[in-house]
Amino acid sequence: MAAEIVNPRSESDSEGATDEPFDPAFALHRGGKMAIQATVPVRDKDDLSLAYTPGVAKVCTAIAENPELVNDYTWKSQVVAVVTDGTAVLGLGDIGPEASLPVMEGKAILFKQFGGVDAVPLALATTDTDEIIDTVVRLAPSFGGINLEDISAPRCFEIERRLQERLDIPVFHDDQHGTAVVTLAALRNAAKLTGRTLGDLRAVISGAGAAGVAIAKFLLEAGIGDVAVADRKGIVSPDRDDLTDVKRELAGLTNRAGLSGSLEAALSGADVFIGVSGGTVPEPAIASMAAESFVFAMANPNPEVHPDIAHQYAAVVATGRSDYPNQINNVLAFPGIFAGALQVRASRITEGMKIAAALALADVVGDELSADYVIPSPFDERVAPAVTSAVAAAARAEGVARR
Amino acid sequence: MAAEIVNPRSESDSEGATDEPFDPAFALHRGGKMAIQATVPVRDKDDLSLAYTPGVAKVCTAIAENPELVNDYTWKSQVVAVVTDGTAVLGLGDIGPEASLPVMEGKAILFKQFGGVDAVPLALATTDTDEIIDTVVRLAPSFGGINLEDISAPRCFEIERRLQERLDIPVFHDDQHGTAVVTLAALRNAAKLTGRTLGDLRAVISGAGAAGVAIAKFLLEAGIGDVAVADRKGIVSPDRDDLTDVKRELAGLTNRAGLSGSLEAALSGADVFIGVSGGTVPEPAIASMAAESFVFAMANPNPEVHPDIAHQYAAVVATGRSDYPNQINNVLAFPGIFAGALQVRASRITEGMKIAAALALADVVGDELSADYVIPSPFDERVAPAVTSAVAAAARAEGVARR
Repeated sequence: MAAEIVNPRSESDSEGATDEPFDPAFALHRGGKMAIQATVPVRDKDDLSLAYTPGVAKVCTAIAENPELVNDYTWKSQVVAVVTDGTAVLGLGDIGPEASLPVMEGKAILFKQFGGVDAVPLALATTDTDEIIDTVVRLAPSFGGINLEDISAPRCFEIERRLQERLDIPVFHDDQHGTAVVTLAALRNAAKLTGRTLGDLRAVISGAGAAGVAIAKFLLEAGIGDVAVADRKGIVSPDRDDLTDVKRELAGLTNRAGLSGSLEAALSGADVFIGVSGGTVPEPAIASMAAESFVFAMANPNPEVHPDIAHQYAAVVATGRSDYPNQINNVLAFPGIFAGALQVRASRITEGMKIAAALALADVVGDELSADYVIPSPFDERVAPAVTSAVAAAARAEGVARR
Repeated sequence: MAAEIVNPRSESDSEGATDEPFDPAFALHRGGKMAIQATVPVRDKDDLSLAYTPGVAKVCTAIAENPELVNDYTWKSQVVAVVTDGTAVLGLGDIGPEASLPVMEGKAILFKQFGGVDAVPLALATTDTDEIIDTVVRLAPSFGGINLEDISAPRCFEIERRLQERLDIPVFHDDQHGTAVVTLAALRNAAKLTGRTLGDLRAVISGAGAAGVAIAKFLLEAGIGDVAVADRKGIVSPDRDDLTDVKRELAGLTNRAGLSGSLEAALSGADVFIGVSGGTVPEPAIASMAAESFVFAMANPNPEVHPDIAHQYAAVVATGRSDYPNQINNVLAFPGIFAGALQVRASRITEGMKIAAALALADVVGDELSADYVIPSPFDERVAPAVTSAVAAAARAEGVARR
């Protein structure tokens, strides 16, 4: 038996090394970042007759008679499909399915390392909304959840919504909701630090893509005082005639203050700046914000405003970077959210489950709360268990748990 | 970091144990048989910045510029999709995708244990030929090969053919070709044992499904003297007016002797019986075969004729069962076939590669050849490396290797 062969390509792998760029990222990625592991023994024919024929037939028959048992006797209820079409990958844009695979593999190993959740990267050779939806629906019997990843707006909204309608397992577009959950956690702690509540705050979001739209809706759900969203043409407001359906809906939900015009104008007197645009914000606009403002400049690798500048005006500064304090990193949320949802076999991930995740994440900081510590480190071992428990409990409370 | 959480459901798994049938197969299957494993460390932010952002972006960009690099820097070129629609699972028939998953997981762990090949079970929620094809084409960017499994005939033939036309990675229906390869290996050794060549033999196959059709074509490819195939209505011959397209093609290729009528009639004087039907063959029909006949009664769990009866007449007896000598088991072939094809990044699996696999498999037996040992044990550690090397070499010789 060749069980010791972990990587059949290890010998020939060295062949390609000569033309490999001299960069540790390439060396690390050679051969990929993940593998399959058997969790039962296949050492002899007795093992084989249990794990495969004839023993497996009894298990198949039991599932055919009671389909719910597939969650007990296969890995379905612990495995998530990480699905992309490669159209909005990191800051790189539409690079196609093959080039997106290293990110999807990275996502998969983060699921495993941080949440104990198995995940399979699936980069699809189609960017057609209907085709993506049909493909995922056909794949659903094999998975306990679907994590949509790096699919460009506005298709990502429709794809997620229609999949949620058709499937009875969680469908979660992490670029939207993962970012929103971590942002809310940081914002809640920042408010607490400065003696305010979410209801006291007026926020301005730069960026009306997947993350911007989701953050705006989620902050409203959580009770923020007001939030306005700006795209490249300025504040999203009902008087604009250039809005997509998604932005038109957003215009109706957000911006109770009735702002219009530029991002910079909207920032005047605002309490919170949330950057998910990749653009830049001039220093005077940050300076014009209210006292004790919060600046979450999350563009990566270049924040919308440099943290050192933001610190001159803001009470709390957060970024998407690991080399500054207060990193808003999705890995704080998605592993625990899926682990919690899978643990109770939730049929979906509700708003209540996401809010529970954000509160649990914020609570990890506890009494250590400070301006440089409004959100935990991704490597804080308390994070995933806290989020997992909170999400599982919320799923039960909301009636979407199946065990 | 929660890296130590191998199975997030381990605690709650025990909940369901009370209603679990008392059977070791159910106990073994609880929680599934496989997991994902990260093969690179994610211990701290330096690791994260290499395996994920920002380091991964360089790798993505390199693949976008040179798509072939996806094989170097992701797991694509070592991972196979095990795709089914659940319509022809073991002897259970059309039990649907969920109930087929334990078999697909079993297949996946056999790929890993015996060939070092990662494999992902994908049981699809469609039985429509076009939908299955479109789905697999869209999944192809993420996989180095496609193993079709337990898809009912005749759709399995069209699905495989059309996928092979559309994809530049191996597409292999194991129920057809895996069985055919192992059968040829056993037959070659049986002929050698009795001082004959394949060209000296007239074979009769019972069963005109995926395995029967593939074995017939493959034995012809390998130079068998003659082969006839029988379905439930008798020998497949051009004078029948009830044949599907696949069987009509088969009637034109096989049965040079021009037999018609019953399976039993065809067995009179035949050298080889190959049973892949699940039916039964009466003892007198076996007794009517030529001297030094070979009886491969591969139906599982009940061979078409009991091995003890077959032994009264035949020189060599093989079955599909592990508790008799000469087990014709696909696991002897598919792990090494895919490992060899992936090793050289073959664009397809040719007839030459399959024949090379069969010969390599037969050669493992070597000088120990006897009537009870015409095919190696699945647990013979020499098998997978021998098949892998032979297939890789054949791929190079046939011009389908890409490295």
